[in-house]
Amino acid sequence: MAYVIIAAMKVSGLGEFGLIELLADTVNNARNPKDSAWQNLIIGVGDDAAAWKVEGAIQLATTDSLVQDTHFDLETVTWEELGWKAIAVNLSDIAAMGGAPQYALVSLALPGELETDSVLSLYRGMVKISARSGVAIVGGNIAASDKTVINVTVLGSLESTSMLTRSAAVPGDLIAVTGYLGLSAAGLRMLKQHLKLDTETTQLLREAHLTPIPRIDEGQILLHRAVKCAIDISDGLIADLTHVCEASRVSARINQKMLPVHPALKKNFKTEYLQLILGGGEDYQLLFTASTLIMPRLKKTMPCPVTVIGEITEGKPGRVELVDDDGKIVPWQKVGWEHFKSRL
Amino acid sequence: MAYVIIAAMKVSGLGEFGLIELLADTVNNARNPKDSAWQNLIIGVGDDAAAWKVEGAIQLATTDSLVQDTHFDLETVTWEELGWKAIAVNLSDIAAMGGAPQYALVSLALPGELETDSVLSLYRGMVKISARSGVAIVGGNIAASDKTVINVTVLGSLESTSMLTRSAAVPGDLIAVTGYLGLSAAGLRMLKQHLKLDTETTQLLREAHLTPIPRIDEGQILLHRAVKCAIDISDGLIADLTHVCEASRVSARINQKMLPVHPALKKNFKTEYLQLILGGGEDYQLLFTASTLIMPRLKKTMPCPVTVIGEITEGKPGRVELVDDDGKIVPWQKVGWEHFKSRL
Repeated sequence: MAYVIIAAMKVSGLGEFGLIELLADTVNNARNPKDSAWQNLIIGVGDDAAAWKVEGAIQLATTDSLVQDTHFDLETVTWEELGWKAIAVNLSDIAAMGGAPQYALVSLALPGELETDSVLSLYRGMVKISARSGVAIVGGNIAASDKTVINVTVLGSLESTSMLTRSAAVPGDLIAVTGYLGLSAAGLRMLKQHLKLDTETTQLLREAHLTPIPRIDEGQILLHRAVKCAIDISDGLIADLTHVCEASRVSARINQKMLPVHPALKKNFKTEYLQLILGGGEDYQLLFTASTLIMPRLKKTMPCPVTVIGEITEGKPGRVELVDDDGKIVPWQKVGWEHFKSRL
Repeated sequence: MAYVIIAAMKVSGLGEFGLIELLADTVNNARNPKDSAWQNLIIGVGDDAAAWKVEGAIQLATTDSLVQDTHFDLETVTWEELGWKAIAVNLSDIAAMGGAPQYALVSLALPGELETDSVLSLYRGMVKISARSGVAIVGGNIAASDKTVINVTVLGSLESTSMLTRSAAVPGDLIAVTGYLGLSAAGLRMLKQHLKLDTETTQLLREAHLTPIPRIDEGQILLHRAVKCAIDISDGLIADLTHVCEASRVSARINQKMLPVHPALKKNFKTEYLQLILGGGEDYQLLFTASTLIMPRLKKTMPCPVTVIGEITEGKPGRVELVDDDGKIVPWQKVGWEHFKSRL
């Protein structure tokens, strides 16, 4: 019966996450335990990256796309920035598993009237972040299309038998994030609304939104320091923490006062900064959980700011609560964006 | 100077192959010999699939997309057929290297108003051919878009230190193809022009165009039988043989009378069948070259028809000649389609 109801639905009604869940069922029902591919599979659809066993290591793979007028607007982004971001969002998924990215495949759908110089700039951006991250671009495909769609697949590896997953949070763990949140969403708002901010802030927000630096080293440090649970913040803090809580069958409580707030964000987005932090998305910071024993050492080891923002609790799987200093629950809207619903 | 001229060009003017060559330069100039990814790389941009060394094996990866109104028309194809084809075209690239496909990642750009049932059908087609080929679908991504773009990446492996490449043809080799050619292009024409053919032919051509069966077993047999050079026929016989001749720095001569002609093709496309065979594309048959010593045995071993159609010769790299029985050159247009130029 559930199927009948779903069948009559539009993609936009079900949303990205609902649709992925539905498709994951279709895929997993076809699982054939006799095939070596299935035998070696550790994680299929449903985490930041897929993972399977190879000789002496774990192979990671992830794919993500940037679609014109959904994810970017050619009025406000350069082709080089776009190339950087298309690779970066995938590197971030590998980072969230604790892996080292190695190879990238690029598939472009492009309008025929596009200048080849634009495509070269796109590739320059891709090459720049790839070179910086030890990644080789090894394959590609180009097709004609009305609008530009940039699809990137990144393969990585893990010289370990364990990895960071969404499903390993346990009650009592502290929840922490790297860096600052909300800057990317603030950057998008600045570009869309043509906000005039001071030079330094403009650059900060533009870079946060268009040329994010994935936390590759940080992911590997977390893994080596016995952390088990991480996710990259692409959908938004609340949305991604909800993913963790659903996958780990736990609840979470975050303290509003503990959230890292960048001074420039607070200054320029006085009434909206909290919403941007909680729901903005596309920050490509890591959210991870760790016991109270491990966390203090991690804060010292990591090459970036690490802020503890709350804790994992027992309770309804997938529930995320925001509290103030007195432990009073602060109501929040579900502001993390789903790709088929409204954007910020 | 060449750069200046190129920079002023449109993507459509340069064509898919020209653009790929240009981008390959950009990528390869960034090659960093200190990175292990580059150290282990065997084949990057420019063959059917990328290949790199892993512990005890070779890893293969390829990516390809189907773009609505460029590669398919929702008036004439079912979602399930589309799913099949999106996976099949990638499996064919792995087959052309002699590899075994293992994992697939699917990235969809979809209109929000699409019925979820259509997406489920798409996935059913993907799952059907994946299960048949021992492939596990392990990851995916969904984004909103005006039109549907289906991007698939397939990873495979080779339990061997050698593989089939485009660049291994040598003068004196015979050129052979598996199965029949031109059926897919004939199928496309039938669908576009609403041709009414007999039931059997209609099914034959529809399947050739929409649910092709990649030559996975055949590719592996070729490799184990000491064949070195192969390509899958996706762009068209002449176009793909030209790719081989360019990569191998040789010429080729094919004999018109030796081409495998399916009776149904000749009967229903009396004046165009040769053009469909030479330039049609999307057949996903394998073209391979082998010495006169190996070829006769291969014809007996392969589980499908194998037809010798000509030979590799010394001469201008990339030149492909078509001759009649008297050795007289038959002029042919360059009918293999480039994706940004006209289609059949």
